[in-house]
Amino acid sequence: MHGGNIITQAKKYNIGIDEIIDFSANLNPLGFPNNLTQLIIKNIKFITNYPDVEASELKNSLSEYINVKPENIIVANGSCELIYLLSRLLSTQNVLIPSPTFTEYERAFRNRTKLIGLTDNNFSLSMNKVMDTLKDMQIVFLCNPNNPTGGLWPKEEILRLAKQVMVIVDEAFMDFIENKESVAKEAATIDNLFVIRSLTKIFAIPGLRIGYGIGTQKTIETLSAIQPPWSVNSIAQIVATYLVKNKDFVKETITLVEKERNFLFNCLSQINYLTPYPSVANFILVKLNNFTSTILTDMLGKRGILIRDCSDFAFLDDSFIRIAVKTRVENSKLIKELKKYDNKNSSFTTIG
Amino acid sequence: MHGGNIITQAKKYNIGIDEIIDFSANLNPLGFPNNLTQLIIKNIKFITNYPDVEASELKNSLSEYINVKPENIIVANGSCELIYLLSRLLSTQNVLIPSPTFTEYERAFRNRTKLIGLTDNNFSLSMNKVMDTLKDMQIVFLCNPNNPTGGLWPKEEILRLAKQVMVIVDEAFMDFIENKESVAKEAATIDNLFVIRSLTKIFAIPGLRIGYGIGTQKTIETLSAIQPPWSVNSIAQIVATYLVKNKDFVKETITLVEKERNFLFNCLSQINYLTPYPSVANFILVKLNNFTSTILTDMLGKRGILIRDCSDFAFLDDSFIRIAVKTRVENSKLIKELKKYDNKNSSFTTIG
Repeated sequence: MHGGNIITQAKKYNIGIDEIIDFSANLNPLGFPNNLTQLIIKNIKFITNYPDVEASELKNSLSEYINVKPENIIVANGSCELIYLLSRLLSTQNVLIPSPTFTEYERAFRNRTKLIGLTDNNFSLSMNKVMDTLKDMQIVFLCNPNNPTGGLWPKEEILRLAKQVMVIVDEAFMDFIENKESVAKEAATIDNLFVIRSLTKIFAIPGLRIGYGIGTQKTIETLSAIQPPWSVNSIAQIVATYLVKNKDFVKETITLVEKERNFLFNCLSQINYLTPYPSVANFILVKLNNFTSTILTDMLGKRGILIRDCSDFAFLDDSFIRIAVKTRVENSKLIKELKKYDNKNSSFTTIG
Repeated sequence: MHGGNIITQAKKYNIGIDEIIDFSANLNPLGFPNNLTQLIIKNIKFITNYPDVEASELKNSLSEYINVKPENIIVANGSCELIYLLSRLLSTQNVLIPSPTFTEYERAFRNRTKLIGLTDNNFSLSMNKVMDTLKDMQIVFLCNPNNPTGGLWPKEEILRLAKQVMVIVDEAFMDFIENKESVAKEAATIDNLFVIRSLTKIFAIPGLRIGYGIGTQKTIETLSAIQPPWSVNSIAQIVATYLVKNKDFVKETITLVEKERNFLFNCLSQINYLTPYPSVANFILVKLNNFTSTILTDMLGKRGILIRDCSDFAFLDDSFIRIAVKTRVENSKLIKELKKYDNKNSSFTTIG
């Protein structure tokens, strides 16, 4: 079960969507930029035209945003479409997936996957372990920063790995941090490297579906040849072209997320039944010592607070949850609620 | 080159998008229903939520619209996504494609296709010819009504064919006619039959991307298992759920298209250098006797009128164009312009 099922959850708990605080989807806590609504209203008329099949304006904007040429960019109906296109392009190769990680890599590559657990040392990422397991594998799929653990693969180690096998790096959350470990620019020139990006998380627009990929011109052309035409809808193209010019919004987000992640991590650490794992991203993996994830998810759900039950991730079980970093007001509400279930803090709950 | 590149064409001819009359895209001449703009404005806030991954409300609405159960329906990012999903599902089979027809079937199935020409008797469709060519073919792809020729495959003959091979029927234009030849209901129970539908044409919303398919529950489940999650964006789901309840709009369209197709056909027949082919659909294939399609397309383009140059269709050449049926005012403008190039009617051009 993916996070971000707010409509389903609102029905399940009989709570209005506006009253729900959603920590289950790893989206920008600021929401989307304010002026986006006006931009969409102005451009609704374009739904009666086919989207630009080449997405030229969008590619030009992305080109400036990430500083690679338009011919090294492919745009897609969310980054998920790219994951499935890559599975079709690399249709005979086997894929190594350091896990736990985003579950769609395994679903897309089906019975050609091998999962290795990154469960040592608090889920810290070990490239040596990946290197030791490469046998018979032609592709390695890395999520960087890694969802749901929040760890970061160093750029240097990714480039070392790409000398041996094809490496696909999903940088869906890279915009939330100072992205010095991004290999987006390198992917434009290294045949063995492909980077997946998304605008869904950083601009909080999962409903619009817009992702993109960076690779060598040859890889981009081969992928484009097997992609259905008009994959990115008109509204998404117009909105995304505008959004990636908002560098200030991204900077503001990075500052906020770092501050709030630290606040949230410290508060979670002080709750006896919770063990949060260090994260560089806009979400935190948490181990539960007293509850199952199912029970805690349901208890919070009834209070209008959604978290991500992590029991369906490989190498995790029903003692793990994932919490998105949100604004101070929202984070404080979550912490207050979580503290109520802490035996050692029962004095707080009676006071609160 | 697909039709419907209005933005590119507007730039090419340096004409404002609002001044262009687009006969190159086979969309509803009425445009989209009036109240759609307000519906979208009201629902913009949902772009910050993930689309319903099951698209339950949309499937329920479609279920009522076409009278098959929700479990026999799959929704997709335009009908093109379905064509490519089918190519992946049926990854080893060979496909027979009666042509000229929509070019994406061939592109999706790549080097597993065999094209047979329906060029006899003014492009009338011959199931006997298809039957005679079946050898080594496990799938037949039919477009019904057929784009760009406007012919109709009889339901009875499609069902006869489905007793021998897998038949995929693209009914993207079926909503424009009294759809007594549709096999949508049959597709829900016959394993060898799959129907592709689209809301793009009938509701004039190519920018939103929304198509659907009808098959047996087993086929739908297998297709869904290889489809990326969240394929249909939030706005498309909300809009489509509403649109398919507008049965009056569809009826009004059918009446208008029939009347205007007859008007357009008669007018085109009276122009000496044009030979229109009989059509049941909302477009007409026309043979040029004096001009190449490139020259005529360019001459009209400069006047703000877009038509579909058909030279890239298999079995056609640069003596064919396709014209969408539009409203009386627009159709009359096209005819007036076309008459100017008619030598035998040169007297009209000096008067007009």
